[in-house]
Formats: sequence, structure tokens, C-alpha cells
Amino acid sequence: MCWQRGITQDSIFTHASRVGINTDRPDESLVVHGNLKVSGHIVHPSDSRAKHEIGELDTSQQLQNVKRIRVVKYRYDPEFALHHGLVNMNNAAVHSTKFINTNERTNSNGHQNNVNDVIDTGVIAQEIREVLPDAVQEAGSVCLPSGEVIDNFLLVNKDRIYMENIGAVKELCKVTGSLETRIEHLERMNSRLAQVRKNGKYSALKITVSYE
Amino acid sequence: MCWQRGITQDSIFTHASRVGINTDRPDESLVVHGNLKVSGHIVHPSDSRAKHEIGELDTSQQLQNVKRIRVVKYRYDPEFALHHGLVNMNNAAVHSTKFINTNERTNSNGHQNNVNDVIDTGVIAQEIREVLPDAVQEAGSVCLPSGEVIDNFLLVNKDRIYMENIGAVKELCKVTGSLETRIEHLERMNSRLAQVRKNGKYSALKITVSYE
Amino acid sequence: MCWQRGITQDSIFTHASRVGINTDRPDESLVVHGNLKVSGHIVHPSDSRAKHEIGELDTSQQLQNVKRIRVVKYRYDPEFALHHGLVNMNNAAVHSTKFINTNERTNSNGHQNNVNDVIDTGVIAQEIREVLPDAVQEAGSVCLPSGEVIDNFLLVNKDRIYMENIGAVKELCKVTGSLETRIEHLERMNSRLAQVRKNGKYSALKITVSYE
Repeated sequence: MCWQRGITQDSIFTHASRVGINTDRPDESLVVHGNLKVSGHIVHPSDSRAKHEIGELDTSQQLQNVKRIRVVKYRYDPEFALHHGLVNMNNAAVHSTKFINTNERTNSNGHQNNVNDVIDTGVIAQEIREVLPDAVQEAGSVCLPSGEVIDNFLLVNKDRIYMENIGAVKELCKVTGSLETRIEHLERMNSRLAQVRKNGKYSALKITVSYE
Repeated sequence: MCWQRGITQDSIFTHASRVGINTDRPDESLVVHGNLKVSGHIVHPSDSRAKHEIGELDTSQQLQNVKRIRVVKYRYDPEFALHHGLVNMNNAAVHSTKFINTNERTNSNGHQNNVNDVIDTGVIAQEIREVLPDAVQEAGSVCLPSGEVIDNFLLVNKDRIYMENIGAVKELCKVTGSLETRIEHLERMNSRLAQVRKNGKYSALKITVSYE
Repeated sequence: MCWQRGITQDSIFTHASRVGINTDRPDESLVVHGNLKVSGHIVHPSDSRAKHEIGELDTSQQLQNVKRIRVVKYRYDPEFALHHGLVNMNNAAVHSTKFINTNERTNSNGHQNNVNDVIDTGVIAQEIREVLPDAVQEAGSVCLPSGEVIDNFLLVNKDRIYMENIGAVKELCKVTGSLETRIEHLERMNSRLAQVRKNGKYSALKITVSYE
């Protein structure tokens, strides 16, 4: 019913426009609650023939933007971590935890401890939105098992941030290039000054003699 | 038929070697037309025991490569955006758009407007291929709903680009380190010059006196 | 059995907590052996309301960390490449290779050649663990078709590395800013020295004259 043979060799596909893994409310083409492991590459269509009005971003602005991005460490809200399959996110494959639904959670004190330990590193969507609005999108309301609702929950597209970091590095190249030019100028000036000082002493001597 | 129980606990898998979501022509192990949301981490096998002939890339070359990469803004071709599930890509979760197939599209003026608005930031595969050929792969022909065919459509592996940016940052560290050494040298030279100038005036004075 | 209608419009989901594509042993929510193609964005929940105890990382340490990361080229172990769907990883879409299971492999000399050619660029988990332990996780034992077992196989979360690179770029901004300040100081000093030298000559002359 859900899946059928695809047109390419040895393939299947679904007519449903959204697929959820560990969630019954997928709101994107594919939603994975928990980790995704990919042995090969993640590739994206990127052909110039599918794109119009192509223009380079201002690398100077990109460097300014990166300076304003905070990379932070944080602890996930336990309710959120449970609801989003993040328990044991960092060692899911070691301690084979199965998906914990709301009922199981309330019975399990052991898991509660794990839940409190979900620490991660990344960015905060609210902060990124101030710097790179197009890196952030809204995901509607998120209902936690506790009944708490987070409205207009924010998502981040990390690729957008990493692309900004490429532009920032390009700009830093220009900055170091310009610093090097100024250093070269100072070096030439200094070697001339050192030369003149030597000559200057002699000429001062000569002048002095001529005035005797 | 398509899916069966896996060997690990509480798992399923497919014998088909390719799975398509929003597309009936998957040409990779998993093809998602539209967005992918992952609540946890994206992880990759990366154990040294699965790798041979490991050698570091030349960071100086990596910096040169990053300097040649353009990060660009562009508008997607409307036909391509429709065919690849990119309509409302930036706010899919807000305006709950379902997959629009060709027939629906031609009937819907409202969607046409959305389609024309699919703006994104990234790179152009044709440009990346000049700099990092191994970041680009060909995906065969893409047939758009209009009947237009794009041959040898190009895909980009963004991880390859971000890895190059790591090397570029390492090289920039060396560049700033070398600039700092030159600045320290100039600072030492300048403080000697300033010293000599003071002494020089006195010695010039002394010499003058001795000649009186 | 495996998949059912989701709560959001036109969606399906699975109650299994792990899904494997090209593998019957998924040990994460979704495991893809081979490449993943995404036409849209990859997005991550990142709302401040799901996070506590948020604190910025030390950018100076982040730069030190990036300096210690090696970006390397390597050749995959042929057994590993076969087992993980990496054959023709770089041009999967061009030469339409189907999933090769163990039996087919031993019969096929042509594929063996391909297998030996799986070259890739990235990082080595064992090295990353020394620098960024939280970017690495263990995936249990990996059994290769040859019967060889790799214990505690390591996975890398590349996002963690790229985030470190953002901090490194921020720190490099501070470094170049501080270098520029020192250069400005040198430039002011040099122009004063050059001025004084000129005046110095004259004053030396004047002093000499007065002693005549």
C-alpha cells in the first residue's frame, strides 16, 4: 500500500509526500527522530542549468555574519529529548536503547537519568535568525509529552551557516593579504630608515667638520 | 513485500537497493525530494581500520581552492523546483504544501507564484568541478515535467567543500603566524631605531663638541 | 505491517525504531548504506526553548582544535566498501550498480576492480577523538563479509567539526584584528621616526653651528 516499485532498477518509492521515522507527524519529506547514519556521501542537486540570477554573496558581509554567530554547548530539555529520540544520542549504538514512548518513560527512572544527560554542541536558531534569517525556518507547534506546546518551533539549516563560513575564510584571505602588503611596506621603510641612520651619522659628521 | 524485520532489535529494512521519497526514480540508496529533518546527529563511518593509504591534503592548496569557490544566491528554475519538491522549501512546515504533481501545477496559479520564489544559497556544481572535481558527481539525465531534459545533471557533495574549508583555516593559521613573526621583527627593529636615534643625536652632539 | 498513515497530511511512518536501507542491521534511527541525495535542505531542530545551560565555546580553544585536525585522502578497505555500499560511490548514478551482496561479490571480478578504487577525502575518527571526543561515537562491532570483525567501530559527526571551524574563523578574526593594531602602531611609529630623522639632521646641523 505505502511503497511500490520505482522506475529505476531495484528501487521502491512512496506516494506519500512525507515519511516519518520514530515520529507519526512528519512535516517534511523525511523526518528522522534520532540519528541518521550514512556510509556514503550526502549529495545535492547543484547544476547551473537549474539555477537563474546567480550572484556571489559579499564576502566582507559574510565575515561580519560569522563573527556574530555563537557556537554553544547546551543541555536538551528532557521532555524534548525524549520526544525527539535524542536519548543516548551520543552512544545510541553502544547501549541499544529502543524508542521510548511516553508511557514507558514515566515508568522508567533509569531513562530519566539518561535523558538529563543529553548535551550537545551547535547553534541557537533564535540567534542565527538575527544574522542569517534564511538559515532558519519555522516548524509549527511542537507538543511535548508533558502537554507543553512550543509554538513556531525553529529549525536551522546548518549548510547555510557553513557556506557563510566559506565566504568568511575567503574574506580573511583578503584581510591577511592586505596586512602582508602593509608589513612589506613597513619592512622596506625600516630598511631605508636603518640605511639613512647610518649615512645620516656620517653626513652629520662631515657637516660638523666643514663648520670647524 | 518491500520491507521486513531487521536483525537488530525493533528494526526494519528493505532489500531494494534504492528508496525514493517524493520521487519514483531514486538513483542513489536514498533519494529525498524536498527537505530532510533530523533531530539527532548525522554520523558517518570513519574508522581508521577501514581506510588505507591515508595521507594529509596540502593545506596551502586547500586555501587556494577555497579562494576560488563562489558562494552564490540564485533562483531555482520553476520547472526544476516543482519536479524536485522544492516549492515552499524554506517554510514547508508553515504552509503545509503537499507534493504538487505536474497536473496540479498547471491548474494552480497560486502555486506558480510560489514556484517563482524558490531562492537559495549555495554553490554551482560546474564551478566546483573546476576547483574540487571529487566534490561533484553526475546524476544522469533529469527529465522535467515540461519535457525538457538536462543531460549529465551535476550533484555536489558539500562535505567535501567544508573539509577543504578546514584545511584553509589551518593554512590561514600558518599565514597569520608568519605575519606575526614579521611584525615582531619590525617591532624589535623599530625600538632599536628609536633608541639609536636618541643616542645618535647625543653622539652627533659629542662629535661636534670634540671638533670645536 | 511496517508502515502506516501518519497524523500529518499525506504522510506515513513506521513504529519500528530503526530503518535500514541496503543493510539489515540498522543501529541508528535511519541507516543508509550508500549515498543519500536530498534536493532540499537538511534541517535540525534548534530552538532555544528546547535547550538549557547554553554557553559559548572558547574560540581560542576551537582554533587550537582545528589546527590539530588532519583532512586526509584515503582508500577504503575493499571488504568494508562492499559491505557498506560504497562501490562506485563517486559515480553511482552514472554506472547504475545494484547492491552487491556477498555471494555476487565472490563471483564478480569486474566489481573487485571497482572496489579497489573507492577513494575518499575526510577525517579519521581515531584522530578526531583526540581533539573533539564528542564528535566521535562507537557503533559496536562491524562484521565484514570476509568474517573479519572490527570491534568498537568509530563514527564521526561532521557537523561537530564544522561548528569547531566556525569558532576557529571567529578566533582568526581576533588574531588578524590584533595584528592590524600592531601594524597601525608600527606605521605611526615609522612615520614619526622618518619625521624625526629629517628634523634630527637639521637640529644636528644647528647644534654644530652653535658650537663653531
